[in-house]
This record gives sequence, C-alpha cells and structure tokens, in this order.
Amino acid sequence: MAKSIERRSGVALWRQIADRMRLAINDGEYDGTGMMPSEAALAQEFGVNRHTVRSALASLADEGMVRAVQGIGTLIERRDRLTFPISRRTRFSQGLGGQAKELEGRLLAQAIEPASPPVAKALALAIGTDCVRLDTVSIADGKPISVATSHFPAERFAGVGDNYARTGSITKALAELGIADYVRRSTEISAAHAEGDDLRLLKLSPGAILLVTTAVNADVEGRPIQYSRSRFAADRVKFFVQS
Amino acid sequence: MAKSIERRSGVALWRQIADRMRLAINDGEYDGTGMMPSEAALAQEFGVNRHTVRSALASLADEGMVRAVQGIGTLIERRDRLTFPISRRTRFSQGLGGQAKELEGRLLAQAIEPASPPVAKALALAIGTDCVRLDTVSIADGKPISVATSHFPAERFAGVGDNYARTGSITKALAELGIADYVRRSTEISAAHAEGDDLRLLKLSPGAILLVTTAVNADVEGRPIQYSRSRFAADRVKFFVQS
Repeated sequence: MAKSIERRSGVALWRQIADRMRLAINDGEYDGTGMMPSEAALAQEFGVNRHTVRSALASLADEGMVRAVQGIGTLIERRDRLTFPISRRTRFSQGLGGQAKELEGRLLAQAIEPASPPVAKALALAIGTDCVRLDTVSIADGKPISVATSHFPAERFAGVGDNYARTGSITKALAELGIADYVRRSTEISAAHAEGDDLRLLKLSPGAILLVTTAVNADVEGRPIQYSRSRFAADRVKFFVQS
Repeated sequence: MAKSIERRSGVALWRQIADRMRLAINDGEYDGTGMMPSEAALAQEFGVNRHTVRSALASLADEGMVRAVQGIGTLIERRDRLTFPISRRTRFSQGLGGQAKELEGRLLAQAIEPASPPVAKALALAIGTDCVRLDTVSIADGKPISVATSHFPAERFAGVGDNYARTGSITKALAELGIADYVRRSTEISAAHAEGDDLRLLKLSPGAILLVTTAVNADVEGRPIQYSRSRFAADRVKFFVQS
C-alpha cells in the first residue's frame, strides 16, 4: 500500500509529511541506521518534491527530533514514545527503566465508594462492597503520561490513598500495607478519543487518542488487590508484550 | 472524575450519550447484571434528563445493541468489540474463538522486496535481503477487522502469498511450507488515527482510531519467520493480555 497524502485536506503538505515522518521515527522505522533516509529517498517515499521534504525535516529539527549534520545526513535525536512493558511484573515506576529521568505520581482524588458490578467482578467482591477509589496522574519528565482510576478493597487497603499521596507510587503505598509483592493478572487494551477531564489532565487537544488499559493486580496468594482503568496519551506511549 | 458532556459541540446530546453508553457497554461496565441501569440512574450518571436518555437508548436499540423488555428493563444484547488474546499462541483465526461465526482472510497484494532496516532487524536478516511482503485484510462476520503488512524471508517462504490467497490463513499458508507450529515472540501496541488506504479497507470514517500492533513470530527453533504490522479498527477490537 502506498502512503497516501491528502492534497485537499486543509493541512499543509509539509506538515502532513512531518507528521508521517514523526510516526515512522516513533515506530522505529529508521532504527536500523539511526538516520533519516536521504531527501531524495524521502521525496520518493512520500510522493512529494524535495522542497517539501526539507520543510518537513526542518520542522522535526525545530522539535529536536532530528538534527542535520553537514556531510553526513539527518540524525534521529530521539523518539517520543515511552515503551511500557505489559507483563506479570508491570509497574509504572519500574517499567520505564531508563526511558525517563524523573517519574512522579500525583493523587487527584480519593474516596470510599461501593463496588460497581465490573469493580466487584474484578476484585472478587460482592457488589456494593466498600472500595477505596484513587484518581491519579503519572508524569514522566514533567509530561503527563497517564491518568488512572484504581479501586482497592477498603477493608484491606483503607490507607492506600494517603500512602500514595505521600510516596507517589502504588507499589510503595501497597508495601506500607504489607503487600511486599504483587503481580499483574490480566490487562485489556483498547483505544478511544480523549474526552472531558482526561484532555485537561493529560494536556491533550480535542481529537487526541488514548490507549486505555483495564488491569487486575493480585497478591502472591492470588487474591485480587487492585483494579485499574488507565488512560495513556497515545502519542507518548506504546506497550510491549513479550510472549 | 465526572463524565463531561460537551453542550456546544455540534453533536446532539442524545447522540453523545448513546456514544458514551456504547463505550460503557463495550468496556463491560454493565456486565455484572447484563442490563442497562434504570433511566433515572442513567439520567443522573450522565447529567441529562430522562427524555435524552430514552432517545439514546432507542438509538442503541436500533443498532441491536440493547433491547427494552416490558416490565424488566433494558437488556444488553451484544457487545461490539472482539477480544483478541495476545500471547505466545496468538493467531487471528483461533484467537477469536466463538466471538465470530465466519472468519476470512483476503490477500490484497504480494511482492518480493528487500528488507528495510526494521524488517531486517525483526527477522534477523541482512538489510536488503529478499522478503515476501503480503498485504492482507481480515474480516469477521463480513466486517473488516484489521489490515496487515507482513514480511517473511523469501528464501524459506516464497510460496506463502499464493498459499494465503488460497487458504485465507497465515497459519495454513505456513503449515504448507513445513511450519507446523510457531509462536509469537513479541508484540508492540500503539494507537493512531486511520489514514489513506486503511480508512477505505476498514470502512472507517476520517478521525477513526487504529490499534496498531507490530509483532514477530518465530518457528519452534526460535528463528523469526514473520514480521507484521497490523492495523485494527479500534472501535471493533480490544486486546487481552493474560500474564
């Protein structure tokens, strides 16, 4: 399939090409060389002239994504998307490894609320059982990455919200409540347009995409302890599943 | 976080509410009971009056998603999203289990092309090594679900395109070439807006979202045999990762 460009879309051609190049860089399409193909090759790939390619590359250079080096070509300086491993050991803080310098978790709100049918099912509780609900936002290097709504059985985890507010980490908040270890039992992944508060909290524009995960964590005895629905800014994140 | 509704968005309120309800149904929010909450509860949940709720439910009933039963309430008839398990055993045809009656795979195009850097890396080949490229579309019960671009080392898999065209299945096409079994080694999952040919092939409207997977399959000796970039219509599919 050729990459098609919309010539009557109201978006300048160089801007469309820059967007395509950014996607290709983030998808790792040029990882083999760490460089952009030549202007001539890019012009052919996208079916545009070299002037348009140059404008697109200049715009990516302004973003700090690529850098032109005299006599060599256009180096790829960075990729935008953080890669999150999805596995039994999934934790926001550790999963990112060296990809971000500073990680931060902020508590937006906490409440005790009765388990709705899906929460009750995920946590193996009777419908209506008291749960702690936490609304949180995770930030990497100053950029909001995801917002999450988590439920915990209130009987075991009454203090989880205060612990999280203090430590900024679910893992640490649970450790203080005697959960030295836990595992991810399952993760569902879908995608949707960002709406309402998520737009504001993730600093996204209308039309932006969310990767949505619903996940269940269990303690080492297999008892479910946390059910979370997380919304990730899709232009900042991808997931990696090792089989 | 309250669910926010845009009152000046140019989209009728009942339509916005119907969209939210469809999402909630597809997310399994009412799975505990198999029924929609009462009109009064929905009106409160979405912050609209009961007339708007009734219009939204009527629209979902027209789609066959819910059904009003006199004296009982509104039953959920079906969910829209197919759930794809992502695991070592991931195959399009078997993964869907009983979720679709009829599965179909169509070959759109095949070609021999030299491995680009990412293809070469994924398949552990030298850059430029001949690969078979297949462009395919997968269809469940008449609805296009995903389009995929797959690369196979041409030396081992020259006939894979013709086999696929005949059988409509990668698993069968590979079996005819001596690959009785294979495993998914890794999967990356991201999301993007659908563009170009993908819009047409998946029968999507501009603005629709794709879930994008890049995956490597390997034979039982661990040699990579297939590298695929698949684009799934995000409103028809979600992924499930069992840890």
